[in-house]
Amino acid sequence: MTAGNGAEPIFDVAQLAHAEILTPDMEGTLWFFKELIGLEETERRGDSVYLRAYEDWYHHTLKVTKASRPGLGHVAWRTTSPQALERRVQAIEAAGLGEGWHEGDLGHGRAYRFRTPDGHPMELLWEVEYYRTPAEAKTKLINRPQRRPLRGVPVRRIDHVNLLASDVTQNRQFLTDVLGFRLRENIQLNNGKEAGAWLSVSPLVHEIAFMMDQTGSRGRLHHVCYWYGYPQHLSDIADIFSEVGIKIEAGPGKHGISQAMFMYVIEPGGNRVELFGDAGYLIFDPDWKPITWHEEELDKGIIWFGSPLPAEFFLYGTPPVEVAEPAHADD
Amino acid sequence: MTAGNGAEPIFDVAQLAHAEILTPDMEGTLWFFKELIGLEETERRGDSVYLRAYEDWYHHTLKVTKASRPGLGHVAWRTTSPQALERRVQAIEAAGLGEGWHEGDLGHGRAYRFRTPDGHPMELLWEVEYYRTPAEAKTKLINRPQRRPLRGVPVRRIDHVNLLASDVTQNRQFLTDVLGFRLRENIQLNNGKEAGAWLSVSPLVHEIAFMMDQTGSRGRLHHVCYWYGYPQHLSDIADIFSEVGIKIEAGPGKHGISQAMFMYVIEPGGNRVELFGDAGYLIFDPDWKPITWHEEELDKGIIWFGSPLPAEFFLYGTPPVEVAEPAHADD
Amino acid sequence: MTAGNGAEPIFDVAQLAHAEILTPDMEGTLWFFKELIGLEETERRGDSVYLRAYEDWYHHTLKVTKASRPGLGHVAWRTTSPQALERRVQAIEAAGLGEGWHEGDLGHGRAYRFRTPDGHPMELLWEVEYYRTPAEAKTKLINRPQRRPLRGVPVRRIDHVNLLASDVTQNRQFLTDVLGFRLRENIQLNNGKEAGAWLSVSPLVHEIAFMMDQTGSRGRLHHVCYWYGYPQHLSDIADIFSEVGIKIEAGPGKHGISQAMFMYVIEPGGNRVELFGDAGYLIFDPDWKPITWHEEELDKGIIWFGSPLPAEFFLYGTPPVEVAEPAHADD
Amino acid sequence: MTAGNGAEPIFDVAQLAHAEILTPDMEGTLWFFKELIGLEETERRGDSVYLRAYEDWYHHTLKVTKASRPGLGHVAWRTTSPQALERRVQAIEAAGLGEGWHEGDLGHGRAYRFRTPDGHPMELLWEVEYYRTPAEAKTKLINRPQRRPLRGVPVRRIDHVNLLASDVTQNRQFLTDVLGFRLRENIQLNNGKEAGAWLSVSPLVHEIAFMMDQTGSRGRLHHVCYWYGYPQHLSDIADIFSEVGIKIEAGPGKHGISQAMFMYVIEPGGNRVELFGDAGYLIFDPDWKPITWHEEELDKGIIWFGSPLPAEFFLYGTPPVEVAEPAHADD
Repeated sequence: MTAGNGAEPIFDVAQLAHAEILTPDMEGTLWFFKELIGLEETERRGDSVYLRAYEDWYHHTLKVTKASRPGLGHVAWRTTSPQALERRVQAIEAAGLGEGWHEGDLGHGRAYRFRTPDGHPMELLWEVEYYRTPAEAKTKLINRPQRRPLRGVPVRRIDHVNLLASDVTQNRQFLTDVLGFRLRENIQLNNGKEAGAWLSVSPLVHEIAFMMDQTGSRGRLHHVCYWYGYPQHLSDIADIFSEVGIKIEAGPGKHGISQAMFMYVIEPGGNRVELFGDAGYLIFDPDWKPITWHEEELDKGIIWFGSPLPAEFFLYGTPPVEVAEPAHADD
Repeated sequence: MTAGNGAEPIFDVAQLAHAEILTPDMEGTLWFFKELIGLEETERRGDSVYLRAYEDWYHHTLKVTKASRPGLGHVAWRTTSPQALERRVQAIEAAGLGEGWHEGDLGHGRAYRFRTPDGHPMELLWEVEYYRTPAEAKTKLINRPQRRPLRGVPVRRIDHVNLLASDVTQNRQFLTDVLGFRLRENIQLNNGKEAGAWLSVSPLVHEIAFMMDQTGSRGRLHHVCYWYGYPQHLSDIADIFSEVGIKIEAGPGKHGISQAMFMYVIEPGGNRVELFGDAGYLIFDPDWKPITWHEEELDKGIIWFGSPLPAEFFLYGTPPVEVAEPAHADD
Repeated sequence: MTAGNGAEPIFDVAQLAHAEILTPDMEGTLWFFKELIGLEETERRGDSVYLRAYEDWYHHTLKVTKASRPGLGHVAWRTTSPQALERRVQAIEAAGLGEGWHEGDLGHGRAYRFRTPDGHPMELLWEVEYYRTPAEAKTKLINRPQRRPLRGVPVRRIDHVNLLASDVTQNRQFLTDVLGFRLRENIQLNNGKEAGAWLSVSPLVHEIAFMMDQTGSRGRLHHVCYWYGYPQHLSDIADIFSEVGIKIEAGPGKHGISQAMFMYVIEPGGNRVELFGDAGYLIFDPDWKPITWHEEELDKGIIWFGSPLPAEFFLYGTPPVEVAEPAHADD
Repeated sequence: MTAGNGAEPIFDVAQLAHAEILTPDMEGTLWFFKELIGLEETERRGDSVYLRAYEDWYHHTLKVTKASRPGLGHVAWRTTSPQALERRVQAIEAAGLGEGWHEGDLGHGRAYRFRTPDGHPMELLWEVEYYRTPAEAKTKLINRPQRRPLRGVPVRRIDHVNLLASDVTQNRQFLTDVLGFRLRENIQLNNGKEAGAWLSVSPLVHEIAFMMDQTGSRGRLHHVCYWYGYPQHLSDIADIFSEVGIKIEAGPGKHGISQAMFMYVIEPGGNRVELFGDAGYLIFDPDWKPITWHEEELDKGIIWFGSPLPAEFFLYGTPPVEVAEPAHADD
């Protein structure tokens, strides 16, 4: 971003605004998100239910839509200004990946639709509707949009999305070059391929990551992540998941990459959800050099300590696909 | 910042680069920072010792300089680009608060000196020297600049500075209007005065705060803050402080303002140091409306739960001043 | 207990079985215990509701009974065997403090009633009824009697009771000499009076404490304590208490005495409840010499770090009494 | 223990006093225990170094002795009284497993030597020497024998030993019948064999466990465990282990059995060490019915959540033995 060519960084994208996931089991998915990890339901319309964590300020950060198969609906980004929105739309159109404006949805105004090179649906927007706190949910902690829920072990805010891509490099370059994301960390294999990339527009290590889809599929979702900020809450919710029969795929543990205390679970609709248990590390250096993990460092990068990732972690995404023959995690 | 007038936000200041504090007791101050909270010494020159936390990437984040009285040396900010540096220098000069360029110091290149309206010395810079990790301190966690120290309960990185000011409004306006900081939270008294303001250039609630100096003094330091990120470490270091006789002024506890798990101690040189025990909350909304705490909400704002702040917290700063007559915390 | 005279220790009392508290606000008290700190209701009869924490194995550990004023109903101890019960009943009768057998209550068989010298009602019993887990609450964690509740921030088990006494020494000697408790820690004032005593029949520092009642009253309750075991949960529930308006009297903080991470709140019925946030320390030494805190050590004994105790902590108990003139915490 | 036959429980053994381990790498072993997990060295004599954690009250809880191979030196238990010692010696002699009195060691008086049926060397003693705190280590927290060390991430006290046994049932019966231990939890295989047993003389779930030695060896050590009491410290020390190259065999994670937050590492001398990160659960019920894990429940019993145990966990012990053919964890 702060390239050797002296160009200044782009500050046009501000944040991950929301994600939409698809579920064939709306009841199960809502039970997971509302009763176990404490999301709040804001509104319903048609086949969709709009949810947010108790420290999310907007109308929703998760839209759950009924579908025949699990997967990604879309990812929405908010820009830093109306002008920034116009600039980025122009850049997307120049890149040939734009799909045009739509008139908005519950919770936000008009948005510009586009796709990543891999085909993941995204949108860019400026106008958002803030959550309107009902009287009984108001708190004296006035920098919190509502009271902490008394259900389950409630997450605090949306954190990031992780997408599978047939070509990591192509997709992350689209984000850096066209949208102004910074590459924070990546994985470089000995065969020259980039196996993963973590990018952000803020001091977070990532609001989005791309990981190589070893099934060769395009446009799939790896996971959506909500944030606790405290490691104890991973133990608390792991305890509950084990009791109610939610499959913990991996964790709690600590990634080397991003230094995140992680846990991965599969929600009843089939989508993978990550729960993030601490602050990770934050990047304030405006001239950050991406951290590249090579194969010989990768074990520690994937798991710094704690629970390993099963092979499935590197194959399963939504929508699920048939895997013709067993792929290898280290291919 | 994202004012109703449609002007775009300024993204020219990137981060708190380092702070300099003055100490009449160099040995005691170094014992505190190195042996108890685990800072690493990078270098010494003249009357100064340069320190950093183990997750700080630059040459130093704390410069400790011998002096007859404790207090603030200066605060240094890094810009987002060389061009941004030039722009902000022009703005400072236009505001009449510039003092000119100096040729740099250990750990960074040339820097532009200026003062806040209250007289706190500051500097703005682009060129920094990164910490060079000695072989024995290298870690396989390659996104961490060195191994975690085995001494005391080591902090992870610098977080923010808090300055006392004779006029909070004037000083925070200088930061927002001239340097592009965003006002995140503030305290508005019934008498119309602003008693405190928390500002940032990143999703952190603050890299800097101003609090009203009730002694009427100008340019004093309230505290420098280092960050743990985990609440347990506040208990751990509190245990040690109580054993070795370091005065814990307040905490562990949780502020309403900024939602920080805090602890305040006075280091042997006389300066107040805050240790920050969790992630607080982060602000990603590019159109953030400042949270204003009025007098009737202030109790919860100051202490959401846990240890109260003693009257001294609102009076003591460095250098210390004679207090003619007892001021009241709620004046 | 392991007295210099060579007598062997008594092992006849095994544990705190349950406590009964009185409340003038049954609805409020149940809301507090069930919705906020997650107790489970087992049964109701007459004016009483029987509750237990999710890791309590018996029918109940808390009996809440409607009354005109808050206070202590009784404290029940389980012996280590039927024979031990008989021996202790004889000892109590010999001490002249017995009141006789009663036919039991929901959750346990016949019990022997007695009073402390100060008049606190107690009972001793052997036969207990175990909690019968309904199918939907069964967990694969078979050493846990039921699933962790999804309501509030649930406590795990009863920990101890703390009683106010007009004469600490007399009451704790009754427990050590007649019932076989061990004195673990106490407070010795310069005027020769014992201001507090912590006693146990297990490695816990206390299942019961006596503190001097500075109002001169007899037989009052200071608090009942439930146990979390993790410090984070004190922050979690403090957050909730602050939001819903439950008064946090003190904490989270750490006592020197017993090394407990504590928090004290007043439940809506008026009784003080302590929530214990870690493991404290455990005493395995069979020849333990009581730790005596003298006045010059007492500040650190009461608060090792964190939130101080307000004057009210040393005066308020249930039932509340009129305090003719302000007593001093350090009298 | 509280058998249906109406016999009263035995209360003669009070606690695990200390363990002795053998090391072929004294320097490495001491570096691990002193610099990383913060044990204090009390004394040296001959080929042995005596260590204790900062909350251990006696002269030592770990004796490290130079030897050609790693393994168990012995395990020492303290009785609840001198009379209890005599009673248990008689019982051991009656069982034919006694080896006679020896005149004591640094840190304790005369001790009676015996072996488990599997051959693990043990001793029983009453007279102990308390740690004498040097002036500079004294703390105002007078219920703590010394200040918390500033080295590494210091453990607080010894917790338990885990021994491999060719016949679990025979060994645990020796402990329950002859020494008065209570069986708390065990594993019952479908083939009728008992694969593990956890026993204690206190509310801890275990001061000792036996696990089936799948290599058919006798008298081996599986691990010695020290206790942190806080989950965060497992993350802290895991971070350090990963940096300095200490192999983390498993964890952090949570066992179903004993509900312990665990981590297992191999110290440089080759012995496995467990670090215990929370309070687990405590057993106060004097009539406790052992929790039996059958094969169909065993997965959750071994790992409730987090890091799985590698096959090696079930095979490796000290001294190491040649494994003729790969055994299976689930044999």
